[in-house]
Amino acid sequence: MSFDRLISKIISMKNPTVAGLDPKLEYVPEYIRKGFFEEDGETLKAAAKAIFRYNQLLIDALCDIVPAVKLQAAYYEMYGHHGIKTMERTIRYAKLKGMYVITDAKRNDIGATMEAYTAAHLGSCVIGTTECEPFGADALTVNGYLGTDGISPLLGVCKERDKGIFVLCKTSNPSSGEFQDLLFDGVPLYARMGDKCEEWGADTVGAFGYSAVGAVVGATYPEQLTELRKRMPHTMFLVPGYGAQGGGAAGIAGGFDGNGLGAVVNSSRAIMCAYKKEGCDERDFAEAARREALRMREDLTSYINIG
Amino acid sequence: MSFDRLISKIISMKNPTVAGLDPKLEYVPEYIRKGFFEEDGETLKAAAKAIFRYNQLLIDALCDIVPAVKLQAAYYEMYGHHGIKTMERTIRYAKLKGMYVITDAKRNDIGATMEAYTAAHLGSCVIGTTECEPFGADALTVNGYLGTDGISPLLGVCKERDKGIFVLCKTSNPSSGEFQDLLFDGVPLYARMGDKCEEWGADTVGAFGYSAVGAVVGATYPEQLTELRKRMPHTMFLVPGYGAQGGGAAGIAGGFDGNGLGAVVNSSRAIMCAYKKEGCDERDFAEAARREALRMREDLTSYINIG
Repeated sequence: MSFDRLISKIISMKNPTVAGLDPKLEYVPEYIRKGFFEEDGETLKAAAKAIFRYNQLLIDALCDIVPAVKLQAAYYEMYGHHGIKTMERTIRYAKLKGMYVITDAKRNDIGATMEAYTAAHLGSCVIGTTECEPFGADALTVNGYLGTDGISPLLGVCKERDKGIFVLCKTSNPSSGEFQDLLFDGVPLYARMGDKCEEWGADTVGAFGYSAVGAVVGATYPEQLTELRKRMPHTMFLVPGYGAQGGGAAGIAGGFDGNGLGAVVNSSRAIMCAYKKEGCDERDFAEAARREALRMREDLTSYINIG
Repeated sequence: MSFDRLISKIISMKNPTVAGLDPKLEYVPEYIRKGFFEEDGETLKAAAKAIFRYNQLLIDALCDIVPAVKLQAAYYEMYGHHGIKTMERTIRYAKLKGMYVITDAKRNDIGATMEAYTAAHLGSCVIGTTECEPFGADALTVNGYLGTDGISPLLGVCKERDKGIFVLCKTSNPSSGEFQDLLFDGVPLYARMGDKCEEWGADTVGAFGYSAVGAVVGATYPEQLTELRKRMPHTMFLVPGYGAQGGGAAGIAGGFDGNGLGAVVNSSRAIMCAYKKEGCDERDFAEAARREALRMREDLTSYINIG
């Protein structure tokens, strides 16, 4: 009912990284794509199956050195229900391999509808007398624009099933300030959202001092990251924007607490496409991903002392 | 590249209604569920198939009197990839029957990721040399918290493929004011979001004066609905919250322009579960839905003069 499970993994691996599985088809090596295209033609089904195989091999190469994966739902929805099946299978496979799984779906809606999203992504639904777990991730990203109603259904499942959520506060994109930086009584909207995260999580604080309600704060805004770390002492941060988007390890350090905890840093493209950057044989893609993940761990831990 | 197609349908049917297809399994009459459970057991697959059959019969009963359907994505995601397949099939079936289809998914993300959501819901993706259309809805609801970056990819497809989006401004739920009503220089956040909608849509205004960028404004806040109608003269409104959530036709009237255009009002539960309220035989559910849709049209048009 907090982020203790995730934090324990981070400590034992001495690695505050989450590997983003945002699989564009063009990232998948030709030798994998080829077989599935031969089998099912140039279809959404073939693409989705190729992506699952790619994800599996990445997970195999990363699971003993990276504590968590983050699946960006958009890159699965893009392949229709076949893509969603790959999302389900990837979540299951990553959990089987002991990884903590975050679904990055930024869901949001009114209370009754958030119950359905909660059941889908973190909980279960009852069919007749049978309980079914559609996706079964450990944590979900959400957008808090609708206020407390849209968050409440998630809090129940966080407590009952030891799950977590990450609420968008200050996102990593260039235009994030358009609304998020607006000042209300001198306080920017992202900080108001942050205050609510502290409130929503208040009764789920775990052994490491962090609640089940985390926040998304972009690596591309190091000042805000440092400011929010102080303002939100019980809120775990999910930090996107490292690497490809321009966020560096030095700037990210401000998002961590004195024990080197309190944040997990995402890298997607740099890990998934390390083989392209290295220029190595595409059949070596998973090992290249592992090398990049190790490089990133070294980069982060040169600024952050964990545990 | 505007909402002209939707507005034309509204005018020809003299009905500014969108029927919400938010199919909880408990809404589906027993006689439909039974067959699918016998075939596939108490599974997500059986549930999803039963829901598709239910949706089909509702669409058959509504398509000549209601211009549009709105699918709430959460109620499909709840059944995993089987549910998403039902979403795809329902969209295709509704379009086949001539209805305008809105996917209510409130998607939001950074630019690169919004490209994937755009391809998924309104556009297409290329597999090898083959173009595939995963969902193919006419319009999508989105959340603008990330600013212009997260909206831009959608605008391209709106222009190229004659699609539309509805951006959350003032949502219908009780806690919507927590963030949306915050005042910035005397202007509430929902109005700032509204101003951006006007800006984002500026070069897509169609024959009826409305752009391809619409807004979600709840029926439960009639004052704001009236205020925003004046503030956002080129923005089509999607109005949830009629009926079950408490919004009445008199209050909704303020969301329409002098020609009785500019808004489309959603009703989900009241239409889908009309047979429960009526207490009629469950096999009469589709006809009961039609009776409720006709009653709603009469209710709305007693306040709104279309065309």
